[in-house]
Amino acid sequence: MRRRITLKDVARQAGVHVSTVSRALNPGTRHLIRPEVVEDIVRVSERLNYSPNNAALSLKTNRTRSIGVIVPDITNPVFPPIIRGIEDALAQHDYFAVLANTDGGLAREAKIADLLRARGVDGLILASVEREDETVSRLAGDGLPIVTVNRRVDDDAVSSVVNDEDTGILDVLRHLAGLGHHRVANVAGPQAMSTGVDRYRAFERHRTALGLDHDPALVAFATGFNEEEGDARTEELIARRRDFTALVCANDRLAIGAIAALRRHGLDPPRDVSVTGYNDMPLVDRLSPPLTTVRIQQYEVGFEAAGVLVGLLEVRAEQRRARHLIRPVELIVRGSTASPAARRHVG
Amino acid sequence: MRRRITLKDVARQAGVHVSTVSRALNPGTRHLIRPEVVEDIVRVSERLNYSPNNAALSLKTNRTRSIGVIVPDITNPVFPPIIRGIEDALAQHDYFAVLANTDGGLAREAKIADLLRARGVDGLILASVEREDETVSRLAGDGLPIVTVNRRVDDDAVSSVVNDEDTGILDVLRHLAGLGHHRVANVAGPQAMSTGVDRYRAFERHRTALGLDHDPALVAFATGFNEEEGDARTEELIARRRDFTALVCANDRLAIGAIAALRRHGLDPPRDVSVTGYNDMPLVDRLSPPLTTVRIQQYEVGFEAAGVLVGLLEVRAEQRRARHLIRPVELIVRGSTASPAARRHVG
Repeated sequence: MRRRITLKDVARQAGVHVSTVSRALNPGTRHLIRPEVVEDIVRVSERLNYSPNNAALSLKTNRTRSIGVIVPDITNPVFPPIIRGIEDALAQHDYFAVLANTDGGLAREAKIADLLRARGVDGLILASVEREDETVSRLAGDGLPIVTVNRRVDDDAVSSVVNDEDTGILDVLRHLAGLGHHRVANVAGPQAMSTGVDRYRAFERHRTALGLDHDPALVAFATGFNEEEGDARTEELIARRRDFTALVCANDRLAIGAIAALRRHGLDPPRDVSVTGYNDMPLVDRLSPPLTTVRIQQYEVGFEAAGVLVGLLEVRAEQRRARHLIRPVELIVRGSTASPAARRHVG
Repeated sequence: MRRRITLKDVARQAGVHVSTVSRALNPGTRHLIRPEVVEDIVRVSERLNYSPNNAALSLKTNRTRSIGVIVPDITNPVFPPIIRGIEDALAQHDYFAVLANTDGGLAREAKIADLLRARGVDGLILASVEREDETVSRLAGDGLPIVTVNRRVDDDAVSSVVNDEDTGILDVLRHLAGLGHHRVANVAGPQAMSTGVDRYRAFERHRTALGLDHDPALVAFATGFNEEEGDARTEELIARRRDFTALVCANDRLAIGAIAALRRHGLDPPRDVSVTGYNDMPLVDRLSPPLTTVRIQQYEVGFEAAGVLVGLLEVRAEQRRARHLIRPVELIVRGSTASPAARRHVG
């Protein structure tokens, strides 16, 4: 094993004092050194393949340049593009993402957030939050910079980057109304999450505004954003024996489960029931039928969230102001929606 | 902001010397302290919510307990379950994953690996390697513990955890031969990657052993493991105007592209051509037709790779021996394969 190259080696080769090398290689103090000396030192340090000892560095600056990124489950296809966006934005600012999964539990989120904090992360980006999230409030109250991504907490003091859920659902309902649907059902998402409640409230508001039939029995609430819940809640809707010709699902995975349940009852989308999703996750364009859905800007949402966090880190704690960004969404019409047939009885 | 709880606070509350607290809270020195004292100190430190200052810790132990995890692209559905497995195994040993994407380029892999090393990661887990990977050889030569996951380098000195590619392809070919196929084509993967070359060599070897027609014109080589290449290489096979009734693709994404190309020529799988994939990535069971493929143990491959790395970290450098694990795979038969029709001419 080679001996580690130190600041001293660089100083000796460059013919300057160690403190000059240290200042030249630190972006925060570089301006104190003449540019031609900085250039020379950088050249020497590259030639020698010098790597700053980050543990020592972080003690001095009180920064580890690592950001904790907590997601419910990285194997859920919604999250990888978000993480990718976060990572790309962090890399631009010389930060690194430290990744952890919660499996959707608030208790595990709390444990992981505390662990990451103990390891000295400079801030947190959370895709795992619920609307009332004690951990987030506690850590934010302690002054740890936090941004939530894709979801938000009810507490406005915590920065967030989310999707324009209201427009997304409005576009879905306009599309269905335009096709001639009047009785539109809804598999709503978990109401403990902002994505669940925001999409559900948009559904209620715009359904009335667009003159669609208002029937509370046409809504079922999922306890999770997954295929199993989509299937079970669609079974529940069918069991109520109320007509509907379209089914708005709060995300793509619910829609995939819904389609399986409809087929089990001999109802073929879109001929018998139109079905819509939300997110436009990978491969839903290759399903049969390809899914009509709302495309969220997963990568951009992640990228912006990291940008907001870096912005918080670059000002002093007392100057930090929460920011709330809403990214636009886009309706993607595919084969799972069509005009309703003349007569139809679901259930 | 609350004042940070220090070792001193814990010592005062527990009524012992600071050095006793330090030893009691460090798993490596805990055995030096009486168990009942350790218990007491742990209880006090939990009550006070004491977090060790990791930057200081890592200077002393020369460990950051962070592991660099480098993947080509986290948005490729093969990788999230692998990363999940890595993260879960690392968490069991109190390590954290620092994640980075390369976009598949060896130059970017080299840059990221050097950056992670400069930040003091204790080791690397690489899903991004090619067979001849200078960065891996250089870093491993410098004594940095490295394990490759899902892919391997040709250099046996670098530990790896991969899938049983040979059995996977053998099972696919046996299945197709059992259905009555004789002319089986192959969209092979990039030969610079172990997954590409291992699956291709298995195809060649077992095709002959099973008595299938051996025609070099039935193989096309993809330059990437993606849908676009699957589409283009299938176009190439069709343009050669040689009959085939089945098409073995080196991964699921190539198979998805292949199916699109076949359909463009009026060839409907499985009626006209049976198609197989590899990996069993999420949602391929929901495609039309659902894809026959080889299920790899993505999560376990990641979990084992992290275990091998931790094993390397726990012994002294001179005692480290490379380990090579091969995880079993399983053929998953679905709707994209069927018996060949009596007469068929592809091309």
